[in-house]
Amino acid sequence: MSDATTIRPLRASRVETWDHRADVVVAGYGIAGVCAAIEAARAGADVLVLERTGGWGGAAALAGGFIYLGGGTPLQRALGFEDTPENMETFLLAALGPGVDKAKIADYCRGSVEHFQWLVSCGVPFREAFWGEPGWEPPHDEGLMYSGGENAAPFNAIAEPAPRGHVPQMADKRTGEKGGGYMLMKPLADTAAALGIRAEYDMRIGRLIVDDDDRVVGVLARRYGKPVAIRAERGVVLATGSFAYHKEMIEGYAPRLIGRPAAAIEEHDGIGIRLAQALGAELAHMDATEVAFFGDPQLLARGILVNGRGQRYIPEDTYPGRIGQATLIQQDNQAFLVIDEASYEEALTTETSTPFFRQPPTWVAETIAELEAEMGLPGQALQATVECYNLHAADGADPVLGKKPEWVRPLRGPVAAFDMRGFTAGFTLGGLRTDLDSRVLHVSGEPIPGLFAAGRCTSGLCAGGYVSGASLGDGSFYGRRAGIAAAKN
Amino acid sequence: MSDATTIRPLRASRVETWDHRADVVVAGYGIAGVCAAIEAARAGADVLVLERTGGWGGAAALAGGFIYLGGGTPLQRALGFEDTPENMETFLLAALGPGVDKAKIADYCRGSVEHFQWLVSCGVPFREAFWGEPGWEPPHDEGLMYSGGENAAPFNAIAEPAPRGHVPQMADKRTGEKGGGYMLMKPLADTAAALGIRAEYDMRIGRLIVDDDDRVVGVLARRYGKPVAIRAERGVVLATGSFAYHKEMIEGYAPRLIGRPAAAIEEHDGIGIRLAQALGAELAHMDATEVAFFGDPQLLARGILVNGRGQRYIPEDTYPGRIGQATLIQQDNQAFLVIDEASYEEALTTETSTPFFRQPPTWVAETIAELEAEMGLPGQALQATVECYNLHAADGADPVLGKKPEWVRPLRGPVAAFDMRGFTAGFTLGGLRTDLDSRVLHVSGEPIPGLFAAGRCTSGLCAGGYVSGASLGDGSFYGRRAGIAAAKN
Repeated sequence: MSDATTIRPLRASRVETWDHRADVVVAGYGIAGVCAAIEAARAGADVLVLERTGGWGGAAALAGGFIYLGGGTPLQRALGFEDTPENMETFLLAALGPGVDKAKIADYCRGSVEHFQWLVSCGVPFREAFWGEPGWEPPHDEGLMYSGGENAAPFNAIAEPAPRGHVPQMADKRTGEKGGGYMLMKPLADTAAALGIRAEYDMRIGRLIVDDDDRVVGVLARRYGKPVAIRAERGVVLATGSFAYHKEMIEGYAPRLIGRPAAAIEEHDGIGIRLAQALGAELAHMDATEVAFFGDPQLLARGILVNGRGQRYIPEDTYPGRIGQATLIQQDNQAFLVIDEASYEEALTTETSTPFFRQPPTWVAETIAELEAEMGLPGQALQATVECYNLHAADGADPVLGKKPEWVRPLRGPVAAFDMRGFTAGFTLGGLRTDLDSRVLHVSGEPIPGLFAAGRCTSGLCAGGYVSGASLGDGSFYGRRAGIAAAKN
Repeated sequence: MSDATTIRPLRASRVETWDHRADVVVAGYGIAGVCAAIEAARAGADVLVLERTGGWGGAAALAGGFIYLGGGTPLQRALGFEDTPENMETFLLAALGPGVDKAKIADYCRGSVEHFQWLVSCGVPFREAFWGEPGWEPPHDEGLMYSGGENAAPFNAIAEPAPRGHVPQMADKRTGEKGGGYMLMKPLADTAAALGIRAEYDMRIGRLIVDDDDRVVGVLARRYGKPVAIRAERGVVLATGSFAYHKEMIEGYAPRLIGRPAAAIEEHDGIGIRLAQALGAELAHMDATEVAFFGDPQLLARGILVNGRGQRYIPEDTYPGRIGQATLIQQDNQAFLVIDEASYEEALTTETSTPFFRQPPTWVAETIAELEAEMGLPGQALQATVECYNLHAADGADPVLGKKPEWVRPLRGPVAAFDMRGFTAGFTLGGLRTDLDSRVLHVSGEPIPGLFAAGRCTSGLCAGGYVSGASLGDGSFYGRRAGIAAAKN
């Protein structure tokens, strides 16, 4: 048996013994892997999942559980929201670019209602309740929420706002029970088990195995340090997650995330991407990153967020992931929240208060001028910003950035500022370029025979932007496609 | 002879006839190619250059000609500037990141003086004259200029400012004679010719040829539609330029440049990158872009540059390439120059006036308030910016952004604004990951046997930032390394 310490492909002719065989071999038992396995099995394939850890789940089981779906799902309609695939597409083209895979976005929007129904048919529960406050996640077990700034500027003027963050029903977080990601994965893993899908755990994939025509016919893995050869008669599906924890790849492709991975797991070392690259796979959007911003959305919406020059830069009532991207990429990670005492008290005591990311103010002062000095900003830098903001806020307007009137009011009386520098972290969105059947594309533009991929080892819906639920969304959607295509191969 | 329309590698065993043979085959006769060819020949190799167009030159011959060099070059010293490799390294680490190849930057800074001397020894002329004004290029034939914001904020507080933009002596541009890039390429091409280096023109490379151990042993090209096989006994050097003109690569890797390539040539279609990717080559910083800003630097320095919200965002006296990057990436390509009549008149009439990119104002008004309204900005947005600017400018200071006192003065009296939205364009900086010997690295981290690369088909010194002269600089420097390493192979 050949060495498993390189990531170069191995010729099948050099494999002496096949330790396992299946029609379809899926690498990674997270969201993309489980969906691929289910659909491959339903298409008649004998399926084996190779998982590196000791159990199914991946990053998905630890996630909040958002799946970005729309176009008029039963949950949207039950809660009184109108949406169409075209409206969803208009929003995603605006929010996720520039440079998005337009065919993939159109395809995803048109298949979104069916995909919701498929998840429900697999047992994923969604409670008919809507959470309408700004924030990252519903605080309880609500099933629907805005999760990409659809109802905030500039998108509320581009497409008809519709909430599309679908969250599997979880128990109230305050009880400490499992979150939405677990409640997504559990019924899918149960579905896979009921279909007789096999899984082998503690298997670290190390090389792809190819025949003499460069068709992928298997995987060489290691288990407890020993090589294991797995034959895939019809195809291999890579579903191994992002590269957020591969240091050199982060430095070379997405250096703004150096030192700040989040919402990823340490297994996300880019192995699936690298194995396919070794076969000449094309990549896309390797610099693209989800960026979380760890500020309390209820405070953010009521205050003004300024950069290191004391200037506002984003409507504070938008999706926090947009705030994170703008802060990290456009403001060099400099962010300060300025809020007055009345709004601060309200954010803490409103019945929709969300106690996430709560922190004491860094500076307090009686006036903006004093606060400006306390913060070490140049004289008049913050005052000028507040003068302009207050001028229009007196009319309930925010012509500079378009924050919605419900959150706009002049800053008055005692004020505070929160130092939010370095409040960003995230994961990578770039990876293998795949087609609508989740075939991994060679740099020549042709599919690599026998190789499929989905989830965060691929470039999915996102390029320059992100919405919560895009990763579990395209991971599950194109995971299914990968399973179907591999089984038919 | 096999098909030359795919970019997959071709097995040498399938080549019936070798049409050409050389020890070292260089693809591309621009700056990286000519330097590789010279050094390979001097190391005793028989060298053949394959060029796609009808003559040597590439993008280099059309460029301004800056080579970024320092650490105490004879030209720097003759003009009274102190510099050290360590000082240069400190600056480049700050200006070109995040995520730079630190080993490459250290190596480049330490080899910089020798590289200058080598260029001079090849006949490249540098006139001992310094141009100290803000701008893109010297207006005459001065040999040295700041070309990366070294003497502007924030870098003038990070490293000791030293000009490092070395420009081959050109005739006064106003006479219409050749520019600095031509004056760089001509003596190098003459040096190559004197060494007996062969060149074949109108050769489009299409595939790399590999032996049974995946070692690169040649190139399959097309000439007038017919395949031509070229054997490389010691190595192939890729020096084929950027991917600025490959539509799908731009969309997938650097979408902010969609529709705005500049300072590149249409031959820059990424072919060298793609051929190496098909062999499993690793990439780096594919999103990195040089971004030019087509505004008159003499006007910019004297005015204030504001974004779509009327906010300043960059010291206006810095390197225009930094202004371009900040405008395109951080300000969504929204830029307006605001200047008062006195400064406008001065910029046009000063003896250091540079008549590049001159345009009439878009809006004029008697006051900032009127100008703000004319520009369609929200009330008080621009006024607040100018109040803060003028407050400090009265003391000759710019604490918000650090523009140097010589350019700071309050805006007074009649004012004008220039609409500079969409004034950006550029080329790509990402590409193949190479080591200090210009060996192309496989995704496994090991070099790909027989394959070398330099110039803009590689990721060189730059990641998030750029300085004028970095491309001709690392292209020539690592072109030499590629030639030496290939010849010794």
